[in-house]
Amino acid sequence: MSQQASELFDNFQELTPSEFFRKNKQMLGFSGKIRSLTMVFHELITNSFDAAEEAGILPEIKINLQKIDKDHYLLIHSDNGPGIPEEYIMKVYCTMFAGSKFRNIQSRGQQGLGCSGCVLLSQMTTGEPAKAISVYEEGDELKGVKVKFKMDVKKNKGLLLKREEADVKQTGVHLELQFKDVSYSLAEQGAYEYIRRTMMGNPHAKITFKDPTGHKYVFERAADIVPVLPKEVLPHPKGVTSDDLIFMAKHTEKRRFRTLLSSSLSRMSNKRIAEIEEITGIDLNKRPKDMKWDEAEKIVNAFGQMDFMAPPTSGLIPIGSKQVEEGMKAIINPEFISATTRKPVTYRGGVAFIIEAAIAYGGDSGRLVNEQRKSEIMRFANRVPLSFDQGSCAITEALKSIDWKRYGLKDLENNPVTIFVNIISTQVPYLSTGKQSVAPEPEIIHEVRQASMKVARKLQKYIRAKKAAKEEAMRSKIFEDYVPLIIKESAALAEVEAPEYKEVLAKVTRRSLAELLGENPVKIDEIEGELDVSIDETVEKSRPKAEEDVGE
Amino acid sequence: MSQQASELFDNFQELTPSEFFRKNKQMLGFSGKIRSLTMVFHELITNSFDAAEEAGILPEIKINLQKIDKDHYLLIHSDNGPGIPEEYIMKVYCTMFAGSKFRNIQSRGQQGLGCSGCVLLSQMTTGEPAKAISVYEEGDELKGVKVKFKMDVKKNKGLLLKREEADVKQTGVHLELQFKDVSYSLAEQGAYEYIRRTMMGNPHAKITFKDPTGHKYVFERAADIVPVLPKEVLPHPKGVTSDDLIFMAKHTEKRRFRTLLSSSLSRMSNKRIAEIEEITGIDLNKRPKDMKWDEAEKIVNAFGQMDFMAPPTSGLIPIGSKQVEEGMKAIINPEFISATTRKPVTYRGGVAFIIEAAIAYGGDSGRLVNEQRKSEIMRFANRVPLSFDQGSCAITEALKSIDWKRYGLKDLENNPVTIFVNIISTQVPYLSTGKQSVAPEPEIIHEVRQASMKVARKLQKYIRAKKAAKEEAMRSKIFEDYVPLIIKESAALAEVEAPEYKEVLAKVTRRSLAELLGENPVKIDEIEGELDVSIDETVEKSRPKAEEDVGE
Repeated sequence: MSQQASELFDNFQELTPSEFFRKNKQMLGFSGKIRSLTMVFHELITNSFDAAEEAGILPEIKINLQKIDKDHYLLIHSDNGPGIPEEYIMKVYCTMFAGSKFRNIQSRGQQGLGCSGCVLLSQMTTGEPAKAISVYEEGDELKGVKVKFKMDVKKNKGLLLKREEADVKQTGVHLELQFKDVSYSLAEQGAYEYIRRTMMGNPHAKITFKDPTGHKYVFERAADIVPVLPKEVLPHPKGVTSDDLIFMAKHTEKRRFRTLLSSSLSRMSNKRIAEIEEITGIDLNKRPKDMKWDEAEKIVNAFGQMDFMAPPTSGLIPIGSKQVEEGMKAIINPEFISATTRKPVTYRGGVAFIIEAAIAYGGDSGRLVNEQRKSEIMRFANRVPLSFDQGSCAITEALKSIDWKRYGLKDLENNPVTIFVNIISTQVPYLSTGKQSVAPEPEIIHEVRQASMKVARKLQKYIRAKKAAKEEAMRSKIFEDYVPLIIKESAALAEVEAPEYKEVLAKVTRRSLAELLGENPVKIDEIEGELDVSIDETVEKSRPKAEEDVGE
Repeated sequence: MSQQASELFDNFQELTPSEFFRKNKQMLGFSGKIRSLTMVFHELITNSFDAAEEAGILPEIKINLQKIDKDHYLLIHSDNGPGIPEEYIMKVYCTMFAGSKFRNIQSRGQQGLGCSGCVLLSQMTTGEPAKAISVYEEGDELKGVKVKFKMDVKKNKGLLLKREEADVKQTGVHLELQFKDVSYSLAEQGAYEYIRRTMMGNPHAKITFKDPTGHKYVFERAADIVPVLPKEVLPHPKGVTSDDLIFMAKHTEKRRFRTLLSSSLSRMSNKRIAEIEEITGIDLNKRPKDMKWDEAEKIVNAFGQMDFMAPPTSGLIPIGSKQVEEGMKAIINPEFISATTRKPVTYRGGVAFIIEAAIAYGGDSGRLVNEQRKSEIMRFANRVPLSFDQGSCAITEALKSIDWKRYGLKDLENNPVTIFVNIISTQVPYLSTGKQSVAPEPEIIHEVRQASMKVARKLQKYIRAKKAAKEEAMRSKIFEDYVPLIIKESAALAEVEAPEYKEVLAKVTRRSLAELLGENPVKIDEIEGELDVSIDETVEKSRPKAEEDVGE
């Protein structure tokens, strides 16, 4: 009955990453027909944006989704990025865990799984090869290549089927992939909504999308600002672990540990190095390979005690509150909007991040559910919309922990409100390979709360002012209704003729004569325009802090 | 300003799986101090159970968690499984994506990431090598080896530091790992609760756990039943994709496609093969390598049209409703419990699964929050507790969609209720590498709903009966209070002596004389014992279906 260990290990296998994900495609976010297609859009748009921006190009993407049959689509995706040099095309599209994005830089993709995951899904569902055209600069020359290929899953490598020269006009990548078992939908988690949200987080981009019915949507740039390029920054000492130091030491070509430190970490001057030597008693002239774990630990502990300047924030480029507002205005045309961008702070000791939040009210804010506007939360990470797994996300958690009643939203769920939150970081702590939720690091939750509460306070002022204006209008109306009566009656009592009062009344009530004459009855809702809802920053800052506000 | 593609690709790298997860440890579930330690317990217990059961051994695990310093622990984990043959030790513990569990068999682990993930975390946080002792049978001999090793992350391989012979008494694995940055907690998501839940899902196992304070918990077997061994089953034709067929064809040694089909899929007789040939017009004598994608698609379409017997369910071994009840009774000692095991069905066309659900009420059911008992949901997959990411899980989604008011639970949240759901499958569709939530496949949601509604109906009957009994007791009490008075007054009126009525009254009210004499006052709560809460299955089945019940 009982089996020997050796028999049990007869089946022992090693899988390549591609084989692993072929068996576990849901881990790449490919589960369900609608979600799978949305994830494909996500990966391809993300990659195009990153590539274009890194090359200093304002991104422009053309997407054409054609329906071939039920649940069977051809996706043609073209960008104006820098292209992919020929020798890397197969690696980008067919090798999982390969990429140029493993640096400490703010980028949408981080994992070397996105494009290859799409090719894998295409191949798994249709058996069709992928087609790509890449046009790129080499020296002063534009080169273009057109390839047809498959992925060899057992080898985690590409299999080139056909190669020819391509016309060259402009750099960029053109990709054609077929998918089955996916479905295009206008639902909240569908591909169209994904593009719409992408535009909110990326008002500098342009996307033209032709949907399967042939309808063409052109999302123009809402902000014509050349995006600042994020820079690669060296990791901050406070964000480094002993394991990181040992790993660096093992794989460096530097000859001295001090040079390794100063070339690998930010804020690491000679003075700092001397300070570390003093605290730890370790001679940092030693060879990196001789670095022991307990020494690395001592150094990390020393980092913890030392005061460093905050991580360089040149690596972090937020969208900016103005751009967020413009992006959202262009798409949801709200009655009120307020956005804020927090200062950079760090989580896990030294990973810098920035939280941006905005709240939009009225207009097309919120989701339309059974013809009622409900609130909606739009989560972004490095400007990329997060469409799934919201339950376990730090952003959702933080927003749920806010007592919205304090901010005049008695029932958040049933208000026409869109809450926008974006986390910018060189290293977003995603909870899963599908990159759809942010790990609930306490500092991230804190920042999301602070940013959201700030914009919520502004909304509260707006709602209060609107309410006050409504009440004043009501009072004014009563005044307007009774004053003429009183005048008339007083005149009758005094046995004089009633005086011409309307002009005076108009002045007092600040209304036009026409309105008072009833030719153009006052609508309470129109009063809004008279309100000044922009709030002085200094006033805002000197407000007493709400109880929740402790950490700020 | 603009950068050339070639410059952008200067940093192009390929990572090994270990390197990838070293950078993304949260994807293995290692995020947060408490969660990280719970995940380690999860991975090691899971592996020990799988190994023992596969070898036909009743699992017994000893865990000793010692605190070395703040957030620094030594974990010693020993099992009585079949051990690991020496040549596989390094691969099991140091190679990610390697394992013996990639077959179509119901097992807790599936991914070849668990043990190696724990070693990676230990090494990343402490720099300490891992220690293991493996004792295993080879032929008629017991062999034992003691090793000390590290993981070479750049190579995704083990690095043996020391090897010696070990004493051999009994097969099993003994593992010693140190961790920093983790924390032991009694909270709901902590390691202790993980063990407690594990015992509910595995009443046949024994775990001895010594916690960091030195306290020893012994979780005895609640059910002394040798677990039936799940069998490896061939995939069912309805669960196979075109890509699977092409993949099989590419990597088989069979010479004919028909032999490949009949040896790789279940329910595939010669008659079936002939039927497929007839429907598709494809000659299945062809060589597997010659199989084209569109032919594979035709075959898969034919599978879809054909009637097959359901997948063999010998591969699926549920815990069983009796065992679930015993396991839960042993741990939460509820006032009422009901469990059910559904029949096997399939998701995605051909992946068989079974849902088990139980509901416990009263006693220690639910969570204690501020001294109030709230409801709690315990999710399991192949008997393994799922502790995190419940928001996005099919089980949570299904339970939330149930209208609990129908079942007498007006406010589910605030009732002393524990809802237990276990999904058994050769292939649980996990949403993430951390294996903490189940993809919301419609069939899974349907089955969870059906199973939960069934046990909820039983709970409803119990609650109703309890309420009725309470009311009857009240009525009876009134009767008891007034009858003596009436007797006395009637006797007085008739001018006779009051008769001895107590014996008759006791008979009528079914109470003991002592109770009636007030020596032992009736407590309403004690009446429960008199209720028959077991409900006849046939009655249950003939009940009119609830509105929600449509799909069954």
